[in-house]
Amino acid sequence: MKKQFDFSLYLVTDQGACLGQELLEVIRQAVRGGVTAVQLREKQAQTRQFVELAGKVKALLADTPIPLVINDRVDVALAAGADGVHLGQEDMDVPDARKIMGPELILGLSVNAPEQVQEANKLEVDYFGAGPIFPTPTKKDHKTPLGEQGLQVVVKASQKPVVAIGAITAENCPAVCKKGVAGIAVVSAICSAASPEKAARELKACLAAQGTKYPL
Amino acid sequence: MKKQFDFSLYLVTDQGACLGQELLEVIRQAVRGGVTAVQLREKQAQTRQFVELAGKVKALLADTPIPLVINDRVDVALAAGADGVHLGQEDMDVPDARKIMGPELILGLSVNAPEQVQEANKLEVDYFGAGPIFPTPTKKDHKTPLGEQGLQVVVKASQKPVVAIGAITAENCPAVCKKGVAGIAVVSAICSAASPEKAARELKACLAAQGTKYPL
Repeated sequence: MKKQFDFSLYLVTDQGACLGQELLEVIRQAVRGGVTAVQLREKQAQTRQFVELAGKVKALLADTPIPLVINDRVDVALAAGADGVHLGQEDMDVPDARKIMGPELILGLSVNAPEQVQEANKLEVDYFGAGPIFPTPTKKDHKTPLGEQGLQVVVKASQKPVVAIGAITAENCPAVCKKGVAGIAVVSAICSAASPEKAARELKACLAAQGTKYPL
Repeated sequence: MKKQFDFSLYLVTDQGACLGQELLEVIRQAVRGGVTAVQLREKQAQTRQFVELAGKVKALLADTPIPLVINDRVDVALAAGADGVHLGQEDMDVPDARKIMGPELILGLSVNAPEQVQEANKLEVDYFGAGPIFPTPTKKDHKTPLGEQGLQVVVKASQKPVVAIGAITAENCPAVCKKGVAGIAVVSAICSAASPEKAARELKACLAAQGTKYPL
């Protein structure tokens, strides 16, 4: 049976957003602060470098229930023994990825518009990453923000758990959670924080204050 | 049993080297001109784009014995049903790639120095791509050219077929072939030619004039 994971506080990494802090240290701190899942996103890395980094993160998470998800690269996920892959709309299509990954690994898919959800519901996907919710500096080429209204439409249309992403902070977290998401994914709110641990802890408290745990 | 392929005239693609000619048309012409193997190299493409292109090339080669090899990306090779993967020294390491690819697909490895061959002989690799033989404009970051002498050292040390790459032309092809290679791999000699078909035909004639067929 497929393992169940908690995607309620989902760290998505971005070396550029770490503002000089070492990525592994940011992840280590974020884990201490309470993130429940980690996605490694490395659009510029050479394959060997990416696999090596993924191996290090996997080792760092070894004694935790925290899954490691690899952005885009199914081959890197398989080589590093990661728990899953997250695919954007420009990445491999889901049936191809599932064929290579097998049925057990987690497969997440980015959705940027409510219209994408209907069709994606039929796919062998474990969760949707819906976003950007708000305008975000992390991705220069990002799509038009969904906004809170758009997020609500996505959550209603979705037959899978929805993780919201895109400029989510401790401030707007309550409003996002009220839309019925399974979790929030953050990049800069943790990676660019002076203390990633403290930032994660604040987001965690914010999620807890919603009175609900959001397991995937 | 593993399928045997002929890597004697091995086209390695580079969109930038095509000088405005459409890549699929260049490949189509190169096939008419007699290339025996095609490697698709797309360092800038998004994953989905790469898989789609690989699918088109695979379709183009469907009625030929010509194998399609994918540069670097094991996931793309598997998704597109390609015949193999070619790995550089910065790409995935061979044991990881072999684990994902299984034993049947072709696996080629770039070697840039004679010292790399000794160790690589032990790996589950089907051929070595040795180069650059001569200074080449295709790869800006290329290693020190092996030269004809270096190629000879590599061929002698190698327990696998060696395909030579790096600024090989109809002019220097005879000298390269005399070093005992299993084939020559070319980028610009075909991709940048006014007539890729004619260029392939000339290289083919040049190989034939060596009095030997060089099957892998």
